[in-house]
Parts: sequence; C-alpha cells; structure tokens
Amino acid sequence: MKGDKKRGLFITVEGTDGSGKTTQMGNMQNYLSSLGCQVLLTREPGGTRISEGIRSIILDPAYTEMSNTTELLLYSASRAQLVEEIIKPSIEKGITVICDRYTDSFFAYQGYGRGICMELLESVTEIAVNGTMPDITFFFDLDPRIGLKRRRAATGSDRIENEVPDFHKRVHEGYRALANRYPGRIKTIDASRTAGDVWTDVRHQLDRMLGFVKFV
Amino acid sequence: MKGDKKRGLFITVEGTDGSGKTTQMGNMQNYLSSLGCQVLLTREPGGTRISEGIRSIILDPAYTEMSNTTELLLYSASRAQLVEEIIKPSIEKGITVICDRYTDSFFAYQGYGRGICMELLESVTEIAVNGTMPDITFFFDLDPRIGLKRRRAATGSDRIENEVPDFHKRVHEGYRALANRYPGRIKTIDASRTAGDVWTDVRHQLDRMLGFVKFV
Repeated sequence: MKGDKKRGLFITVEGTDGSGKTTQMGNMQNYLSSLGCQVLLTREPGGTRISEGIRSIILDPAYTEMSNTTELLLYSASRAQLVEEIIKPSIEKGITVICDRYTDSFFAYQGYGRGICMELLESVTEIAVNGTMPDITFFFDLDPRIGLKRRRAATGSDRIENEVPDFHKRVHEGYRALANRYPGRIKTIDASRTAGDVWTDVRHQLDRMLGFVKFV
Repeated sequence: MKGDKKRGLFITVEGTDGSGKTTQMGNMQNYLSSLGCQVLLTREPGGTRISEGIRSIILDPAYTEMSNTTELLLYSASRAQLVEEIIKPSIEKGITVICDRYTDSFFAYQGYGRGICMELLESVTEIAVNGTMPDITFFFDLDPRIGLKRRRAATGSDRIENEVPDFHKRVHEGYRALANRYPGRIKTIDASRTAGDVWTDVRHQLDRMLGFVKFV
C-alpha cells in the first residue's frame, strides 16, 4: 500500500478459460461494496475503448497468421493503456480495481504456452505496467479440458481458445509455476468445486488481506 | 548482403509528411524493375491486414487519450507483423522491398518527438525487428512546416499530423540526428527541390549501391 491508507486495492483474477473467474469477480465486487469499498471491474485485454479495439484484433479467429511477437506486443499495448487510463488513476483515488487477467496470464500464455523467452516478456512487461502490480492475485486452478468444455458450450471460441489442447495444458502448468514462484501474492483456489465452495475460499483470502482474520 | 547474392535489397524511405516519399518510391520501383529486380512496396504502420488494423487504431484522430507507451507498443506490433510476414520472407526470396517509414521514424517520432527514452525504444525495436535492418535508407529532408502544408491541402490530417508544430520540428531534428549518426546507411536528400532533381539524387545513390558508380 506504499504507506498511503487511502489507496485502493489492486486485485487480479487469473486462470484458464471457464475456470469461473467472472462469477467470483461478481462475488468479490458485491462483498467489497458491502464493506464500503468503491469497486471497479475491468478486464484484459480490453477495459478502455483503445484496449478493446486492440482486443478485437488479438482475438479475431481469422488472424491465424499473427506472429508471436505481434501478439505479445499487442497484449502489452492493451495493458499499457489500461494501466495508465484506468488502473493507476483509480487506485490512486482509493478505488479498488478487480482485473480479469493481467501479467500472470501474459507469462502463462506467451511464456509457457507459446514458449517465448521469459526475459523478453519481463522487459516488455516492465515497459507496459511501469511498476503497477497487483496487491493480490487469485489463480482459479482447473483442468483446462474441463474449463474449455464449459466455455465452448456457452459462448463459442476465439483465436486463443482455438489453440491445441497441449497449448492450454502448458498454460495451466505455467499458472501453477507462477503461483509457486509468488506464493505471497498469488492465492491458488481449487476451482473444480461448486461456486459456493470456491467463494468461501476467496472470501477467506480477502478477509485475511483486509485484516479480518489474523491467524489461519 | 550476408554473403548471399540472391537476397533482395531492403530499402527504407523516411521523412516528415509531405516530403515527397511516395513519388520517389514510385520512381525507385520503376527504375529497379527496369533493371530486372522484383520490387515490393510497403508501408509502416501497415502493410499486412493485421498491421493495417493496428494502423487504423494508431492514427484514429478520436483516440486523443492514447498513452505514449501504448502508441510505441502498437507501432512495434505492426512492425513485427510486417517484418515476419512480408519483409523477411521477401528479401530471402530475392525480392527488393521498399518500405515507407521504418525504425528511423520510430526513433524520430517516439524518441525525439514524444521524448521517450532511447534505450527503451531500442530494446522494443530489437524485439520487433529481430535483426532485420535496411541496407539503405533515404531521408527526405524538408522543413516540416512546408511538408504539412502540402499534406493537409491534399488529404486532411490524422492523429499524428494533428500534433503541434513543435512536435514536428523535434521529429525533423530527430531525423537529422539519426542521419548524422548512421551516415553509411542513411542518405540525406534535400527534398525542397523539384521531384525531378530529387530523383536524380536518389537514382545516383541507388546506382552507387548497385555498384554502377564506383567513385563519387
């Protein structure tokens, strides 16, 4: 919190598609609002009109010729605009921001999924986020085969969801590796259970972060 | 030429708007074609369907809220796609590529114009172009006030052209600084003269590069 008690929280929500992120973001918003927080939900890639324009290029299923480098730079451009236009000014005004995907998705998809060198991704991330990192991250841990099945049944699929199963498996392993690397920030939530059980865990972690639960 | 005589040339054309780049690119294409070269003209940002989509976001006059970081990452994404999809495969096949704007515009506009740190721009450029640099660059040197006047009369103006005059002055000074820094690669052409006189200079430089003129 950098010593400023009025600063809003920055919460990110990560996991493969269909892992229940949206439902839990709604629960978090309701809960934190009930505690008197001003809460803003946003998403990546997207969240501003410029970033949504970039998102529509990234996810267009027709663009099968997109190079890995183009893709990683577009994700970073979308992120840079979201940080400077929404995330940074909001948390500085005391608003809590909950963002659907952020840098961990970048490392999981581009690094573990596409096999791009981590140092390269880190240097671009540094440029794009300029120090704006989440206070807490929820990783909804679910076998990607189950998640994609849920998702495709509900909404059809985009260019990234159309990747081969092995890609989604590597992404999922990437999330797990990141959660192991940053256990203080990233909270792993078993997302194979009912939405109610998942929420109990999430709420418990929020309560810990807010200081409502001193010992666990 | 990296020892491979079949490799096509990579020529870039730089300068502020209205400096006559398009006319001279046409002349170059006709001349090189008459010598039996296969020639491909392209432009930045743009040149592929993905890059043209990115271009339309970059240049949209409505997006006045675009952050400098977003802008530089979008230019780089567009460039990465153009390099991997068009420039690199074409020159490898022996096709000469003439590109309207490339990395020098990036350093002139983002570095000198926007004041972004050169080291940052260099590190993103390294990612975007991955070693694909021009064999020769023509810098059409023209007072930007004259160029913009020509251009606005002809086509109206985009988000970049709408920048204050001081911005265009800094960009022009940037080009001059780059030409001083890379005198071997960048050929400065006085673009305040007639198109015919300018072409005489350009053709002379092409002839030198092709080995038709041994001493100057």
